[in-house]
Amino acid sequence: MDPIFFGGLVITLVGIVVSMLIDGNSIGPLIGPSSFLLVFTASMGAGIMAYRKSELVAMPKSALQAIKSDVPDVQDTITALARLAETARREGMLALENKLEEIEDRFIGLGVQLLVDGADEKVVQETLEIELAATDERHTTAIDFYKGLAGYAPTFGMVGTVIGLINMLGNLEDPGQLGRGMALALLTTLYGVLIGNLLFNPIAMRLERLNEVELAALEVAIDGILSIRAGASPRGVIERLEAYLPPSERIGVGDRLAKPGTSTEAA
Amino acid sequence: MDPIFFGGLVITLVGIVVSMLIDGNSIGPLIGPSSFLLVFTASMGAGIMAYRKSELVAMPKSALQAIKSDVPDVQDTITALARLAETARREGMLALENKLEEIEDRFIGLGVQLLVDGADEKVVQETLEIELAATDERHTTAIDFYKGLAGYAPTFGMVGTVIGLINMLGNLEDPGQLGRGMALALLTTLYGVLIGNLLFNPIAMRLERLNEVELAALEVAIDGILSIRAGASPRGVIERLEAYLPPSERIGVGDRLAKPGTSTEAA
Amino acid sequence: MDPIFFGGLVITLVGIVVSMLIDGNSIGPLIGPSSFLLVFTASMGAGIMAYRKSELVAMPKSALQAIKSDVPDVQDTITALARLAETARREGMLALENKLEEIEDRFIGLGVQLLVDGADEKVVQETLEIELAATDERHTTAIDFYKGLAGYAPTFGMVGTVIGLINMLGNLEDPGQLGRGMALALLTTLYGVLIGNLLFNPIAMRLERLNEVELAALEVAIDGILSIRAGASPRGVIERLEAYLPPSERIGVGDRLAKPGTSTEAA
Amino acid sequence: MDPIFFGGLVITLVGIVVSMLIDGNSIGPLIGPSSFLLVFTASMGAGIMAYRKSELVAMPKSALQAIKSDVPDVQDTITALARLAETARREGMLALENKLEEIEDRFIGLGVQLLVDGADEKVVQETLEIELAATDERHTTAIDFYKGLAGYAPTFGMVGTVIGLINMLGNLEDPGQLGRGMALALLTTLYGVLIGNLLFNPIAMRLERLNEVELAALEVAIDGILSIRAGASPRGVIERLEAYLPPSERIGVGDRLAKPGTSTEAA
Amino acid sequence: MDPIFFGGLVITLVGIVVSMLIDGNSIGPLIGPSSFLLVFTASMGAGIMAYRKSELVAMPKSALQAIKSDVPDVQDTITALARLAETARREGMLALENKLEEIEDRFIGLGVQLLVDGADEKVVQETLEIELAATDERHTTAIDFYKGLAGYAPTFGMVGTVIGLINMLGNLEDPGQLGRGMALALLTTLYGVLIGNLLFNPIAMRLERLNEVELAALEVAIDGILSIRAGASPRGVIERLEAYLPPSERIGVGDRLAKPGTSTEAA
Repeated sequence: MDPIFFGGLVITLVGIVVSMLIDGNSIGPLIGPSSFLLVFTASMGAGIMAYRKSELVAMPKSALQAIKSDVPDVQDTITALARLAETARREGMLALENKLEEIEDRFIGLGVQLLVDGADEKVVQETLEIELAATDERHTTAIDFYKGLAGYAPTFGMVGTVIGLINMLGNLEDPGQLGRGMALALLTTLYGVLIGNLLFNPIAMRLERLNEVELAALEVAIDGILSIRAGASPRGVIERLEAYLPPSERIGVGDRLAKPGTSTEAA
Repeated sequence: MDPIFFGGLVITLVGIVVSMLIDGNSIGPLIGPSSFLLVFTASMGAGIMAYRKSELVAMPKSALQAIKSDVPDVQDTITALARLAETARREGMLALENKLEEIEDRFIGLGVQLLVDGADEKVVQETLEIELAATDERHTTAIDFYKGLAGYAPTFGMVGTVIGLINMLGNLEDPGQLGRGMALALLTTLYGVLIGNLLFNPIAMRLERLNEVELAALEVAIDGILSIRAGASPRGVIERLEAYLPPSERIGVGDRLAKPGTSTEAA
Repeated sequence: MDPIFFGGLVITLVGIVVSMLIDGNSIGPLIGPSSFLLVFTASMGAGIMAYRKSELVAMPKSALQAIKSDVPDVQDTITALARLAETARREGMLALENKLEEIEDRFIGLGVQLLVDGADEKVVQETLEIELAATDERHTTAIDFYKGLAGYAPTFGMVGTVIGLINMLGNLEDPGQLGRGMALALLTTLYGVLIGNLLFNPIAMRLERLNEVELAALEVAIDGILSIRAGASPRGVIERLEAYLPPSERIGVGDRLAKPGTSTEAA
Repeated sequence: MDPIFFGGLVITLVGIVVSMLIDGNSIGPLIGPSSFLLVFTASMGAGIMAYRKSELVAMPKSALQAIKSDVPDVQDTITALARLAETARREGMLALENKLEEIEDRFIGLGVQLLVDGADEKVVQETLEIELAATDERHTTAIDFYKGLAGYAPTFGMVGTVIGLINMLGNLEDPGQLGRGMALALLTTLYGVLIGNLLFNPIAMRLERLNEVELAALEVAIDGILSIRAGASPRGVIERLEAYLPPSERIGVGDRLAKPGTSTEAA
Repeated sequence: MDPIFFGGLVITLVGIVVSMLIDGNSIGPLIGPSSFLLVFTASMGAGIMAYRKSELVAMPKSALQAIKSDVPDVQDTITALARLAETARREGMLALENKLEEIEDRFIGLGVQLLVDGADEKVVQETLEIELAATDERHTTAIDFYKGLAGYAPTFGMVGTVIGLINMLGNLEDPGQLGRGMALALLTTLYGVLIGNLLFNPIAMRLERLNEVELAALEVAIDGILSIRAGASPRGVIERLEAYLPPSERIGVGDRLAKPGTSTEAA
């Protein structure tokens, strides 16, 4: 569970509330469960209209993944590949088969399986690149879904306000009600903007960032698996793959091969 | 008929109505057939101005197709191609001619016809890719048309509100009428936003999704037909084409070739 | 004169007027020649500021062309090229010179002239592609011009309203005038939106569609002229070029070569 | 000085004023030097924040260039190159050195210098293409600067209006002042829209058009200089380069070589 | 510290204040620390939600870098590479090792290290291009972060205004409070627009400009290092790399090699 996602949300809400208290505004009139209901439900309903069931069932998981930030790390990917290169060098390509069940990363596991099967270089590369493209496409579908919701939320917030105004304008007899009716109407505008900017949009933006991070790790993994297939030494694999890291994060050969027992789990 | 399209619409409307009832708003003032008429008719009129008759006649069918989600499925495409590969292997390329009338998918049928005619690899590929590009272009025209309508709807909703305001402002003598005139004027804004976001935009978004799905299936079909032409075994065709599927959906050789009598219908 | 352009305009205006009458609004207060004048003139003035005289003189013709939908048709292009291929096959490439004055399509005429001159394949292709790119660029300039006007119209409509409001707010003494002044001010907003969405934008969108259609026809023409240069038979030219058409529109060899006397005029 | 830039401005202002007079609005309340000052100064200040001094000093010159429309013309470029080709053919490549000081166009001068130096074909092409890319980049920086100002103007216009409203709302005691305060506040909105749409945006749009025109001329110049280097005849250079012109503007060999004494000045 | 960043800010604020004083508005009602607090804190909170801790810690440094404009200069890069070429020519490639600690630019240092190691041409190029791409990506992440904040600021300004309005509308009893409440509510709108357009957006825009400048310098550096590796003379390196400069900034061989003692520090 990434603390920054909720930390950012809390900072925003604290900033709003503290500013309100300084100005002498009260929080009571801002509590509107019906406004939350309208914006959230209407956005969800409109958002799902464009998708098919098989795509929608994966959406809650994507939101959770965004919040948990559970993505492959280039560092772990490099270490895992260095150790696989060591095994391949010492005990031969077929010895990688014994490592298969230790590998937690599905993508690296697929690559190692192809190495064990003795697949052609072109086949290894094409298969892994199709996997990478399919991963990107699945992520993009989720990003677009939450971006869509982020756009619908202020729209339906505005819809709720217009509905409230129309009702209020039809009952102008009681001017004392006027202010309260208008305040209530404006509440859905407020909830629409907040739900869009503090819930749906951050999920979409975070999924977009994580997709970039994961695709970078998968590209490193493809490069490493092809290097192992070409018979590169563990040192060669590490030097090649660390070029993808900023200089300050390059650990070097020694540290990466130090604890072989835990390598593939880390990946 | 895809239940999600109407399901999403119902969820949105229920969310709006329940929230209204909680707030004590009534539905009566929101009923405005004239506002619906203005937004729908004016958007349609403006939307068609950019197109030619031959393009417009296909638009209602596209909308229906979006709602019905009737697109080729990669799974069925792979199974159909595996069985065609089996026939080609066992009985020769010319035996595919007998299968032609069983094939329901027009695109695969075109590919098989080219195989039967003994067309060049380059000719097979170019012809199928021109077909694919033409399919994409037809879909894109429909997507753009409904995106256009989704943009016109809130605009003409606003036009209706301005017209109502101008009339109301010219008759300020009766202040009792003021509220009701303004409520009526706002109604077209409401209908414009709802028709745009719950009718035209979902159709456009869904057509866009379905186009992506169909183009992916056509690309798999091109790959499969070229593999059959190159003499690949049914197993080879399946292994190659299943790489396009997420791992969880890879059925394997056994299941795909089990019921040869129904293969091409499924496609 | 394409009936759809004016048909769409009429549908929109009828939809607006009928809805107004149902709501009991009157048309009188919406008549504002000065608002039309402001929006149209100011948009035009701002729109031309970015262009040079030689570009601007072609703009009225582009608007007329959009309304008339007078573009080359792929069908006619294919038929014309098939007949030219027939002549080239039977009587030799130089015999095409006699056909030159019958060819109405300037682009095909240029291609045939190159064939008669015995130009290199590379020269034929490059010359025709430069022509195609120049056509695209001229069209794009016109599309951008009308898109610009479509954006200026609502902006200057808003300018007119702000000017009206400023004048009205300076003369608040007579509250009876207030409503009428505000109604008049709002009128330019209405005209801005309508002129933008029912005049300038449809012209821009239609020019964009027609450009796509024309470029497709030119690409088919380039392909056909190169095929004739390579000595393809009329049947070969037809089969190659019909691949660009949707299957339902493929006429076949018989029909295309039936009436040779009228072929080039159709192009 | 291109009359269209100021002509468009005048047309817009006349359209606005005539429409105002028809509606009985007066021009007096629209005169607001302080609103002009706020919008212009604040937009400029915000606009320069993103740039470095060396970039900013070139901005006024770019604006002048947009208004003056002083760009190389493809026609002149072709004529100049044809005459240089003639000299190179008759008197040899080194004779071009004598022509160097007659050449007014810096880009063609650079190309000729490279020819005189006997530079490699690849060196000539790369050097001229780097020049072209640098020209494009300098222009794009200016275009982006004025586009930025065009976006800031309405924003600061709105800022001025909000400032006026806040001041007015704090002094509601005198309702007679209310209207005048609000009118004054709205004035900056008006100036923001006008300055954005009639000053900064037209400059940006015009720079964009001129950049397209100039880059097209530079591409023709590169093609021509490489042709001269390859030993093409004046006729060959003209025929090759006129393919870039629309057919109606192709002058032909005779006219281009008629007055050799004035050729390079025209460029 | 680049004076233009603060200069632009000051010009904007002076323009606003002078215009206010001319119109007789007072500055007092515009002072709202709570509005600044709301907009700044809420924008920050929402902005960080999409990023990971390791990315966020670099953001303040990026903002400082934007304000300081501390980027590599192409001029210095060319001079430094010319002097390194001189050393390599006179004393051999290994002599560059002694220069390594004098080189301040990390990127050039990395390139020289690769030369000293005798790395393959392909390895040198790929390693430096991966570095360049990683630099671009780091910058782009920062640009996107500040662009995000620039978008959030007006949104939360509007949120503050809606909150103020809702509170005000719930307490309409005291009409004397009405104006002051509304003025206070509008203040966050003002701060949202100003903070977005005078703080966050200029930082984003400036980072974007500086990124372009730095990437151009890195591309020149890659070209120069590969030239040194290929054994180019100092003169050859200078002539090749100065082609990237506008003609007016080409210093030539003499000036670049004049003061060898200070060359690498300048880079």
